[in-house]
Amino acid sequence: MTFSFAPVGVIHAPYKEKFGIPRQPGLVREAKSRLELLSPYNLPEAVEGLEGYSHIWIQFVFHQAMRSAWRPRVRPPRLGGNVRVGVFASRSPFRPNSIGLSVVKLESIDTSGGVSLQLSGGDLLDGTPVLDIKPYVGYADSIPDALSGFASAPPERRLEVCFSPRSEEQITARQDERLRSFIKNLLEMDPRPAYSGEQEGRVYGIRLYDFDLRWRVVGDRLEVLELAEVD
Amino acid sequence: MTFSFAPVGVIHAPYKEKFGIPRQPGLVREAKSRLELLSPYNLPEAVEGLEGYSHIWIQFVFHQAMRSAWRPRVRPPRLGGNVRVGVFASRSPFRPNSIGLSVVKLESIDTSGGVSLQLSGGDLLDGTPVLDIKPYVGYADSIPDALSGFASAPPERRLEVCFSPRSEEQITARQDERLRSFIKNLLEMDPRPAYSGEQEGRVYGIRLYDFDLRWRVVGDRLEVLELAEVD
Repeated sequence: MTFSFAPVGVIHAPYKEKFGIPRQPGLVREAKSRLELLSPYNLPEAVEGLEGYSHIWIQFVFHQAMRSAWRPRVRPPRLGGNVRVGVFASRSPFRPNSIGLSVVKLESIDTSGGVSLQLSGGDLLDGTPVLDIKPYVGYADSIPDALSGFASAPPERRLEVCFSPRSEEQITARQDERLRSFIKNLLEMDPRPAYSGEQEGRVYGIRLYDFDLRWRVVGDRLEVLELAEVD
Repeated sequence: MTFSFAPVGVIHAPYKEKFGIPRQPGLVREAKSRLELLSPYNLPEAVEGLEGYSHIWIQFVFHQAMRSAWRPRVRPPRLGGNVRVGVFASRSPFRPNSIGLSVVKLESIDTSGGVSLQLSGGDLLDGTPVLDIKPYVGYADSIPDALSGFASAPPERRLEVCFSPRSEEQITARQDERLRSFIKNLLEMDPRPAYSGEQEGRVYGIRLYDFDLRWRVVGDRLEVLELAEVD
């Protein structure tokens, strides 16, 4: 017995690859994204009343993780990547059914020519297929005193982020006020894979928007090197 | 483009049909249910660490609503059934992709012979196919100040529930302490379909466990008549 679903929408987001994406939504509030409803679901009537909600649930497909085989245990990055927990005790993309769940802030709804929802605080990859959208209902969905195992607090900010003169210049040239704080908030959580053994000074790249964000860590400082052209 | 998913589990619950089910999870705490993991997912390793969480998300299929065509607008029972809102501004089972989302309390985990999760506060129908289980992560999932449109408060309890001598006797005979308060909490929210025009004195039946719960409303009192045999 299987169930088949066609996407009702698609995500347009600055995150172009999995590496570097915040591990939970809401952590980097500058991350703006857009959910575009696809035909035949892109009707203004289908989102009528949604403007009364500040947050929505997105149920989506981890499309970049789909071809991987699932394993009963995964290594959450939150535990340093060395401890395994059950796949159903994690939010890992590598799961029996590659369905994700994220709550995002609904900034606005655009119904001029199709339907697009402007979002912030999302953690979804560009191109993510969306299976469903539901309103966030506070009295049912918000459980402030829930016990949350190993994920009881947001990841700590642990690196000081500084910008090279070249990267400062490139950011300024883009004339986007949010870009600098977006990059800072994204990197200060230290996106390096914990299990790889941190190689001091190694240059990493994260695909964001149309550029490759290059950076390295020396001591407890993370230096943004440049916004390089994508190869 | 479609995505296919096989269920990882199935729900065993007192609710045998859609009519009478609380409209959001958590409203009737006595409702105990069990999520049984199916092979090959029923491995104790797959739920390792889940015992640290008090609540879990269940992503499931609205299997009784699957064959209905979706419409861009639905009539939520919360609005009296006469007002329409967009399907994506509702949690209605009648949606483009029949995927549901519920948070439930995780009471215990049984790994003696397969894997079963004991749940409470669920609103899922018996036999519901489960697509995924995820831990409820408080710092990401709980947004106490979220604005929730028309669903800003739980449905009010509006009926006084009383029991006929016959129903009292039948409940006592079942020797289940929770049963009386379960029935009371379930019925005091008034499960009558608002849009049907409330017919005073009409006898309704709700399929629960192995019986048909018969009741009627007179004025603002709901009388439980009997726990009848299922036809």
